[in-house]
Amino acid sequence: MKVKKIFLPESELPRQWYNIMADMPTPMEPPLHPGTGQPIGPDDLAPIFPMPLIEQEVSQERWIDIPEEVLDKYLLWRPSPLYRAYQLEQYLDTPAKIYFKNEGVSPAGSHKPNTAIPQAYYNKISGTKKIYTETGAGQWGSALSFSCALFGLECKVYMVKISFNHKPYRRIMMETWGATCVGSPSSETASGRAILEKDPDCPGSLGMAISEAVECAVGEETAKYALGSVLNHVMLHQTVIGLEAQKQMKIAGDYPDVVIGCSGGGSNFAGLMLPYVLDKINGKEIDIIGVEPTSCPTMTRGPFAYDFGDTGQLTPLLPMHTLGHNFVPEAIHAGGLRYHGMSPIVSQLIMDNLIRGEAIPQMETFNAGVTFARTEGFISAPETNHAIACTIREALKAKEEGKEKVILFNWSGHGLVDLAAYNDFNSGKLGDHELAEEEIQRALDDIKELPKPKQYKG
Amino acid sequence: MKVKKIFLPESELPRQWYNIMADMPTPMEPPLHPGTGQPIGPDDLAPIFPMPLIEQEVSQERWIDIPEEVLDKYLLWRPSPLYRAYQLEQYLDTPAKIYFKNEGVSPAGSHKPNTAIPQAYYNKISGTKKIYTETGAGQWGSALSFSCALFGLECKVYMVKISFNHKPYRRIMMETWGATCVGSPSSETASGRAILEKDPDCPGSLGMAISEAVECAVGEETAKYALGSVLNHVMLHQTVIGLEAQKQMKIAGDYPDVVIGCSGGGSNFAGLMLPYVLDKINGKEIDIIGVEPTSCPTMTRGPFAYDFGDTGQLTPLLPMHTLGHNFVPEAIHAGGLRYHGMSPIVSQLIMDNLIRGEAIPQMETFNAGVTFARTEGFISAPETNHAIACTIREALKAKEEGKEKVILFNWSGHGLVDLAAYNDFNSGKLGDHELAEEEIQRALDDIKELPKPKQYKG
Repeated sequence: MKVKKIFLPESELPRQWYNIMADMPTPMEPPLHPGTGQPIGPDDLAPIFPMPLIEQEVSQERWIDIPEEVLDKYLLWRPSPLYRAYQLEQYLDTPAKIYFKNEGVSPAGSHKPNTAIPQAYYNKISGTKKIYTETGAGQWGSALSFSCALFGLECKVYMVKISFNHKPYRRIMMETWGATCVGSPSSETASGRAILEKDPDCPGSLGMAISEAVECAVGEETAKYALGSVLNHVMLHQTVIGLEAQKQMKIAGDYPDVVIGCSGGGSNFAGLMLPYVLDKINGKEIDIIGVEPTSCPTMTRGPFAYDFGDTGQLTPLLPMHTLGHNFVPEAIHAGGLRYHGMSPIVSQLIMDNLIRGEAIPQMETFNAGVTFARTEGFISAPETNHAIACTIREALKAKEEGKEKVILFNWSGHGLVDLAAYNDFNSGKLGDHELAEEEIQRALDDIKELPKPKQYKG
Repeated sequence: MKVKKIFLPESELPRQWYNIMADMPTPMEPPLHPGTGQPIGPDDLAPIFPMPLIEQEVSQERWIDIPEEVLDKYLLWRPSPLYRAYQLEQYLDTPAKIYFKNEGVSPAGSHKPNTAIPQAYYNKISGTKKIYTETGAGQWGSALSFSCALFGLECKVYMVKISFNHKPYRRIMMETWGATCVGSPSSETASGRAILEKDPDCPGSLGMAISEAVECAVGEETAKYALGSVLNHVMLHQTVIGLEAQKQMKIAGDYPDVVIGCSGGGSNFAGLMLPYVLDKINGKEIDIIGVEPTSCPTMTRGPFAYDFGDTGQLTPLLPMHTLGHNFVPEAIHAGGLRYHGMSPIVSQLIMDNLIRGEAIPQMETFNAGVTFARTEGFISAPETNHAIACTIREALKAKEEGKEKVILFNWSGHGLVDLAAYNDFNSGKLGDHELAEEEIQRALDDIKELPKPKQYKG
């Protein structure tokens, strides 16, 4: 019998996260204050994040110790298994070997707890009693709720109201873990009330939810705010994925020619690929691909520029690939990939030609997801289907070229709380979304007047 | 760091199922023909089951080889991890050591594929092209759909209509795996049409859905029927759980004093405990507990008698603990535990005092499930919450007695497709269901006139 899954013993769980900041060929440019446009320092972030996370955000140390208490909680599901996708290979009749890292085994069903756990921990030891956050479709909100339950922290989640109303399952998960979840905009904050006054039926947006969560965190002495993607410390925590994968690929006796992850804010993609970027810097040949929807083509169409993280223009300006903070992506089902910006680390690595983006339309991703479900068994999150679709493209390319190629992708989460999306697909209601060129141009105009990074690319 | 999870290498996946029939202290009494009341033979079952499964149903061989093709598919998620519930122990402040076998890691999210895979396989090699089945809340239907996808078999599932209408997620899973799922009663069968003619708004029942599925299977040359619990061959396939657990407990260096599983038809409970029953027969002291809802107390209140498997009186009569084929349990959320009967193997072992039943009310089970979610992280199926509640009872008993005790329970599945139940609990809408004594007496009256097993116990 061929080995299907490679498990690491718990003693092999990585004891340190890898900080790519120590090895970036081009140093990252600093975040800028949203009001003054000047570089911000740790103190500017102190009202919303605990100091250990701020230190990680700017750290240049290559290896950062994972605290014992975090390792202890990671063991609830980590090390996660590495799978060989024999059944998919056979179905595609490809000479490629396909491996995937299964991050769906966590209690929240995705990679998100890899950073939610340390964020809750560092808040706990810094005296935080309550964490506020926002969530779109609910993956991040549920991961943070779960993590706060383990550390005895209060958690309140502002969930974009249209999702709050239409996708109750994620809210129920949060409540089961003891968190409070309210639809945003809400009447509980000044910013929420201001929005509701103008538009009582406002469906909400991630930008509005961020404003509500940040307002609450700033207003309470022992409360903080938490973000589930984009920032450097989030990418850092996620590297546990790639560090495990490297050990497991060694056991498998293969080295990846291609490394793939879907990329919205960039965290699951970065988590798998950052340790491989170090290999690439050291001379390995690897094609590293972040996959995004054609309807929100941040990496493949967005300039590298300074932009706000939110539509409300409250967050610092970050140097990143962005479609403009006012870009409104189509209502595709991969909610986690509908973000106008991209992690500055991921963005900088694209600028340095160490990794690349690839955009795939919605129908191709769902076809890939259904193929995967009928061969490898697991039903994937709509976001994850983007990584699968790209993997299938690469496997079929290998077949055409008659090349044996090793592909490794991140199976970032299962789709059991996203089944409504599959229902739309199965019943023929789904289609591709054309990108509205005027909309993208209009959104890009909004960032023209902002400060430019040295490496600005329009 | 303490070891949290014990994984077996894939090379340690059991190569044989354990057949308790070879070791039962009291031989099982035969099923009886529903019409004649005479013992039935293999030929009577041939129209609905393929011969290899019929042979397993009556086999007296102690060990039965698991085919290579089945092992191959088991590897998609097996061997499943054994967890030590440190966080729960700490929360309960108990001297007991608590272990659980995590069967929620399968693609369908429960233990059901352990038998769905071999059933699909034996059908495939016997020339079956299409399998019909019924499902209540959808666990079994989705497991069989998944398994049929892997073996290229057609699958059609009759799903109790009220669940079909109110719980679309399981249906969507089935469709994603390529199966057809229709609400029962349907207009597609004679039995369905007969019911609809009398009552066009009939909400359906498991008994009606069985009738539709069996009617279809019998009517097509290359079609068969499949059942997800109760029968001997189903219990056999599930023993892979307990056989793995025994190896893992040995690695952990502990032997269980108590073994616990929730029990509706009996398959996940049997799967974990049957190999331990052999140990008990050979002299070990173990308390083996099947947990059922107080609102459907088959094991704790039902006589041991011959009864039909369905309300329609179409199935053979089986010797079992039963509340009568017309018993209508309350609408509790643990759909998988709302069955009037119990596996004949489980029932006979209760008669022989090798195992015992325990009934727990709904609110205690959900409280246990929420405690588990906030300590061990995972959200459990409502059925599984019964096993957790019993585990907590035993752990608190150990605390009172000041005894170190080793508890092993079967975490039969996750609750991510059952979140509506948690919503009812979280929002205070849930309560306990009083057992209607008249209803149970009325239902028991229905079996008084049926043939009696030698060991009849009223």
